[in-house]
Amino acid sequence: MTDPNKILLDENEMPTQWYNIVPDLPAPPPPPLHPGTHEPATAEDFSALFPQALIAQEMSQDRYIDIPGEVLDVYRLWRPSPLFRAHRLEKLLDTPAKIYYKYEGVSPAGSHKPNTAVPQVWYNAQEGITKLTTETGAGQWGSSLAFACAQFGLESEIWQVAASYRAKPYRRTMMEIWGGKVHPSPSEVTEFGRSLLEQDKDHPGSLGIAISEAVSQAVEDPKTRYALGSVLNHVLMHQTIIGEEALRQLAKVGAVPDVLVGCTGGGSNFGGLAFPFLREKLKGNMDPVIRCVEPTACPTLTKGQYRYDFGDTAGLTPLMKMHTLGASFIPEAIHAGGLRYHGMAPLVSHIYDLGLVEAIAIPQTECFAGALQFAKAEGIVPAPEPTHAIAAAVREALACKETGEEKVILTALCGHGHLDLAAYDKYLSGDMVDLDLSDEVIGAAMQGIPDIGQ
Amino acid sequence: MTDPNKILLDENEMPTQWYNIVPDLPAPPPPPLHPGTHEPATAEDFSALFPQALIAQEMSQDRYIDIPGEVLDVYRLWRPSPLFRAHRLEKLLDTPAKIYYKYEGVSPAGSHKPNTAVPQVWYNAQEGITKLTTETGAGQWGSSLAFACAQFGLESEIWQVAASYRAKPYRRTMMEIWGGKVHPSPSEVTEFGRSLLEQDKDHPGSLGIAISEAVSQAVEDPKTRYALGSVLNHVLMHQTIIGEEALRQLAKVGAVPDVLVGCTGGGSNFGGLAFPFLREKLKGNMDPVIRCVEPTACPTLTKGQYRYDFGDTAGLTPLMKMHTLGASFIPEAIHAGGLRYHGMAPLVSHIYDLGLVEAIAIPQTECFAGALQFAKAEGIVPAPEPTHAIAAAVREALACKETGEEKVILTALCGHGHLDLAAYDKYLSGDMVDLDLSDEVIGAAMQGIPDIGQ
Repeated sequence: MTDPNKILLDENEMPTQWYNIVPDLPAPPPPPLHPGTHEPATAEDFSALFPQALIAQEMSQDRYIDIPGEVLDVYRLWRPSPLFRAHRLEKLLDTPAKIYYKYEGVSPAGSHKPNTAVPQVWYNAQEGITKLTTETGAGQWGSSLAFACAQFGLESEIWQVAASYRAKPYRRTMMEIWGGKVHPSPSEVTEFGRSLLEQDKDHPGSLGIAISEAVSQAVEDPKTRYALGSVLNHVLMHQTIIGEEALRQLAKVGAVPDVLVGCTGGGSNFGGLAFPFLREKLKGNMDPVIRCVEPTACPTLTKGQYRYDFGDTAGLTPLMKMHTLGASFIPEAIHAGGLRYHGMAPLVSHIYDLGLVEAIAIPQTECFAGALQFAKAEGIVPAPEPTHAIAAAVREALACKETGEEKVILTALCGHGHLDLAAYDKYLSGDMVDLDLSDEVIGAAMQGIPDIGQ
Repeated sequence: MTDPNKILLDENEMPTQWYNIVPDLPAPPPPPLHPGTHEPATAEDFSALFPQALIAQEMSQDRYIDIPGEVLDVYRLWRPSPLFRAHRLEKLLDTPAKIYYKYEGVSPAGSHKPNTAVPQVWYNAQEGITKLTTETGAGQWGSSLAFACAQFGLESEIWQVAASYRAKPYRRTMMEIWGGKVHPSPSEVTEFGRSLLEQDKDHPGSLGIAISEAVSQAVEDPKTRYALGSVLNHVLMHQTIIGEEALRQLAKVGAVPDVLVGCTGGGSNFGGLAFPFLREKLKGNMDPVIRCVEPTACPTLTKGQYRYDFGDTAGLTPLMKMHTLGASFIPEAIHAGGLRYHGMAPLVSHIYDLGLVEAIAIPQTECFAGALQFAKAEGIVPAPEPTHAIAAAVREALACKETGEEKVILTALCGHGHLDLAAYDKYLSGDMVDLDLSDEVIGAAMQGIPDIGQ
């Protein structure tokens, strides 16, 4: 019996708990530090930014946390998301490998980001917060937060990296459809933004800068908090619903992954898919190779340093131990805007440091070549970010063609590319280039990482 | 027990036959006529345009036609499509009505159009055809045909209405991702196109003109045929998989529609949803009101004449009896590009003439107001075309709020609006206007309808 194209779960089969990998790790992750004292940060240190419930999740040692009913109600607008067997891509590649992909593009915003936006907004609403600020790069996170705020009646104010704001006006429209207020970053709204615009009125911005602006606005108003779309433990935990569903879906067809590949920007898509499978691996139930895929233009894991650094450019956040290129690193304007972050989630950094996962970097032209094969075979036009995961899956499938191995490859197609077609236009017209990022360029921003005697 | 948000079918529950409503109608639809002799057109008259199998379907008296296995294989990339219960929209509207919507935006091209593109390409491929030409307005049909051609290895050449080509460059990119070759219409490629560009080098084009160009290129090469995305009997028949699935899905939750509303451009989305329900109505199994919804800027059913006219502007097609505003009618550039066609499918026109369905016209600002409510409640951002269906559903739901009736409303959300966000931008900025189309303007093009003594 052949697998169906889509392995579906009914709404009543949807997981009702998120998975927190921390208590299952062989060593605890290094704690975040207070930026002044360099002592482990306390819940109090985060309280101007996040509601108590999310801070508790950030520091939790509980293995499972119940998903609130009202969050499940919103998840059901699009979840459980389908797991696809890529029959037609396998045929195109002429590979004996079996390729499965978990598709998160079915969400309203078109990516995995609403999985955490919805609970973040809900927990804030429970504590009387009426407005959330955030940053966004490609716009996936900003639109997800705007969507979630619309569901629970909160305001959203979003700083979008100026280069993306100008290049992708329709993501702004999408945020506005859901009631979001959007600024290009750097903006005239914040002191930090104004200082950067004085240096360069056409400043392209970066995620680190936009975070600084959003954070600085959140701490000024007691009814306003900040929401982060990746990196933090609680964000990755919310995304584990992806992997929990995928486990159930693969079980339905009796498949066990030999290789799991996921693209990594801040780490939440990767963690969301991988952590439940890593749990099963640590328990000895399966033994997949688990591999992070990052762009060569922002090679956080493969070329960054593992040390304490700020999450933002202005240095407002607690210090986090992570693989980083330096908080002042501004990556080239590659098309995978969501992978242009200077650091990697502390949890993903930690499990990489522990040797539990691998990492590779792939140049964007190879990614788009893979995406084009994928689109012709499977129909779906991928977002630029998961083209990295697809390219890695294609590499693996072609290796199987050589060896004849019938490996089971699992990946996440974390979003569609309907709002990223300019990138495809550039690729199709032959104008897309791979950026040759020298070690000097990569090392420059790392000079600015604070030395805390680590 | 409350309905789930998504009423799903497994792939093995997918219908395996299309439904042809013709033999079930109380009177046969008037036949197409040869444009020269005005005699009923024969299969031979269509043979330069379409493969024999599709001509046979166009004229078929068979109630059901088997869907070929290879077509089912491609359908399974996204079908069965979900039927949603719009719980959150009902709550927002505070209505006792139950609103269900069948969502076709899950297809690769983002609309219902691949339902017919895939079989059209397959049947052509069986008869040795290697290339298809077509027209497209908003780009939904062109991208669907390009996708389908990529699945079966055919070339596609597409004439896109120039106004849309310029306003929506990313639809062109999408067609090119799937290997399509795209021209703005009017184009320099055809004699008819050149003649129009001589009159106006910035000619905005129309669907009728683009059809003329695509047809003229198809008839010149024996290995090339033409594909039409709506209007014809076989196209509407392919779309009945929508309604057949919806019937099965509503049955799963024990719901029977009291009102069915669908937007009508060429008629294929409407026919696809409505015909299986009309069959059940004619059999006495249910008694829904069935209502066509069209834009006030292109009011084919509500203000057009029911008479023989050409399907295209240059007068290359057979004459079809349909509700028409005149083949030379060029509608205002409303955002629902897919509803800007001068005529209505002969089958939809016929059942409207028989009094089996109703029709209303709704102005676009009301449509976008409804779409915004829908997007905030349900998450999905609708394409401009189905905003008409949504606005009609909202009207009906609000009427139920007044009367307290718990009507079951069924509609089709035939596509997402990810490539139409400029229209939302215009609405949100307050720049969208409703066009006051005078009877004089509407009547002008009707003067040019051929008089064949009807």
